[in-house]
Amino acid sequence: MQKNTYSKKSLLLHRTLKGKIEITGKTLLDSQEQLSLLYTPGVGAVSDYVGKHPEQIRKFTVKGNMVAVISDGSAVLGLGNIGPEGAIPVLEGKCIIFKRFASVNAFPIALNTQNTEEIISAVKAISPIFGGINLEDISAPRCFEIEERLHKELTIPVMHDDQHGTAIVVLAALTNALRVVRKNISRVHVVINGAGPAGVAVSRLLVAAGVKNIIILDSGGIIGTHRSGLVPYKKNLLKWTNKNNIQGGLRDALRGADVFIGVSRGSIMNADDMLAMKPKAIIFSLANPIPEIMPEEARRGGAAVIATGRSDFPNQINNALVFPGVFRGALDHNVKAITQEMKLHAARSLARLVAHPRADSIIPSIFDKRVVPAIARAIRSAKMKTSV
Amino acid sequence: MQKNTYSKKSLLLHRTLKGKIEITGKTLLDSQEQLSLLYTPGVGAVSDYVGKHPEQIRKFTVKGNMVAVISDGSAVLGLGNIGPEGAIPVLEGKCIIFKRFASVNAFPIALNTQNTEEIISAVKAISPIFGGINLEDISAPRCFEIEERLHKELTIPVMHDDQHGTAIVVLAALTNALRVVRKNISRVHVVINGAGPAGVAVSRLLVAAGVKNIIILDSGGIIGTHRSGLVPYKKNLLKWTNKNNIQGGLRDALRGADVFIGVSRGSIMNADDMLAMKPKAIIFSLANPIPEIMPEEARRGGAAVIATGRSDFPNQINNALVFPGVFRGALDHNVKAITQEMKLHAARSLARLVAHPRADSIIPSIFDKRVVPAIARAIRSAKMKTSV
Repeated sequence: MQKNTYSKKSLLLHRTLKGKIEITGKTLLDSQEQLSLLYTPGVGAVSDYVGKHPEQIRKFTVKGNMVAVISDGSAVLGLGNIGPEGAIPVLEGKCIIFKRFASVNAFPIALNTQNTEEIISAVKAISPIFGGINLEDISAPRCFEIEERLHKELTIPVMHDDQHGTAIVVLAALTNALRVVRKNISRVHVVINGAGPAGVAVSRLLVAAGVKNIIILDSGGIIGTHRSGLVPYKKNLLKWTNKNNIQGGLRDALRGADVFIGVSRGSIMNADDMLAMKPKAIIFSLANPIPEIMPEEARRGGAAVIATGRSDFPNQINNALVFPGVFRGALDHNVKAITQEMKLHAARSLARLVAHPRADSIIPSIFDKRVVPAIARAIRSAKMKTSV
Repeated sequence: MQKNTYSKKSLLLHRTLKGKIEITGKTLLDSQEQLSLLYTPGVGAVSDYVGKHPEQIRKFTVKGNMVAVISDGSAVLGLGNIGPEGAIPVLEGKCIIFKRFASVNAFPIALNTQNTEEIISAVKAISPIFGGINLEDISAPRCFEIEERLHKELTIPVMHDDQHGTAIVVLAALTNALRVVRKNISRVHVVINGAGPAGVAVSRLLVAAGVKNIIILDSGGIIGTHRSGLVPYKKNLLKWTNKNNIQGGLRDALRGADVFIGVSRGSIMNADDMLAMKPKAIIFSLANPIPEIMPEEARRGGAAVIATGRSDFPNQINNALVFPGVFRGALDHNVKAITQEMKLHAARSLARLVAHPRADSIIPSIFDKRVVPAIARAIRSAKMKTSV
């Protein structure tokens, strides 16, 4: 289907549905007795008990299986800062994915503020009903501080999916792509185009997975010590990237590179840009809906494995493979924080679901029923490992 | 069923259900195409459109049929300040009632703060996804300022149900009780025991409905100019109550009274206290689960019409008769605020559903299918009347 057709069909479908989620009762409430048990007077005993034993709340309320999907509308898809209303269709979409693939109840919260402190206060204020917080489409650098602070100040897991969901699925795909081209993760040279939330988190997780050589670019070119006036979070990237202090643009970065990971914007690269890459290059071109380089063009440039964020090409790298399972595992095993160890485990488990990776098959389908349980188990086993 | 049996059964039922609500998708999401339309890439067109036309949001998202039920846990049922966790079972109960009786999606928000400014900020911050705000179980006097401020600062209707839901259902019941005893609302002498949110709002709405003579009591006795050190909101009550400046306690207040409305606590009155009331007295004894005076005792005291908040006696006066219809009407007719005029209309419409009121039948059952549509229509007609 072409983009225009998608847009029209999607607008029509959303207008027909008037919202993709609904809130339903788990019971029928069809008699006075039901009403007296589920509401007053019966509910008084439950409130009294939970008020005195707040640690028991998951046993009597939805908290144990309820996640908030929260955005301030500052970085919605590739659309940028379109405000909270614009974020709602995406948030509702994540909520139906949570339920469909992981039986997690998820509620969309679009925030009417883009002030860091106000966001932190609001999320903390509404946290009692939630067992986890999925932050979504919040722009850098606020997303880093918001996640960090909430992580410290709440006792439920908080995950900015644009960072860590992306990092996990990219690492899983890269693991299998490297098997296809028979290269060792500790020896490949990786170029990440895009220094937003995804680029930052992908670089961190790749380093944790053993990658030693990473260059990151933003719209000003390669990020290195030569760049004056870098904002603090970008300067911070130099602790684990660009050890050889390469300068220049995308072509300079790609010289001798094995892997290109695009988490930036569409149509910024062509086959010629890839000329100086190593043989059997891996191209993850994840900008949506237009990739950094189209698969056909990447193939012309000599790529051995190509992945995009799109469903109409092979190897779709999509966060939706990851976030349902991460929160399923976190909720079921009372996880207080999603650690780097858990992300590594999740990525490896996801990769292992593809028994025999091929160039056009490095990542499972989101409809593969093994995905969510595998990731949930990975979260659990990482938790057990680190808390021993 | 006895209270203990209710408590045990209710605890067990809540523990089995693990939460009374769930979030479900309106569609199956069973194919790659569905996923592409409801999530990326298709959803991008919807976000783009809604971001540019935020006033169209109700057509494409759940906002048009979604209410937040919000408490800070400071005044939960008769249990008092038991905190946000303790409030959640009640909030979830209201949410299933909203759906069951009025097809309104409602989500429970228990706030982790009891600071007025923090509550206002949090509710404003999360408001974009909601078409209405039902405040619940927030203690006085903060509930007054919070509702007032949110009413001013938001463009969606905000209603503190403990105030206005109670006021509407009490006025409806009183209207029919007065028909039973053939007394005129403008000539009756009303005593309200309890100067919390319910007492304040009931007194206001009764005055709007034509009651001229109201005395309110708090735990210190009759509220009058003689009481030094009254907090501002109680002092404010003197603008429309106790015009004759009566002093003393409950018996003093009841001298010559036609109507007693208890919105306080259980077992504070007996038949002897009623001796000086006028003949054909009306007793609304609404404390839950133990009424101010039990129906049998009130009958011994000479009451002609008796109502309680309980389902096991005739004439159950319950907010659940009101809030689903009020928000159904507000959502369907794009109401920005619930006005006093709307509350009067709603009360009259609810009363009219009982064609021939009798002493044991002054108010419809919550299972009466006419209730929600009648109240929703009343909201609409009041809106049309005042905006002409």
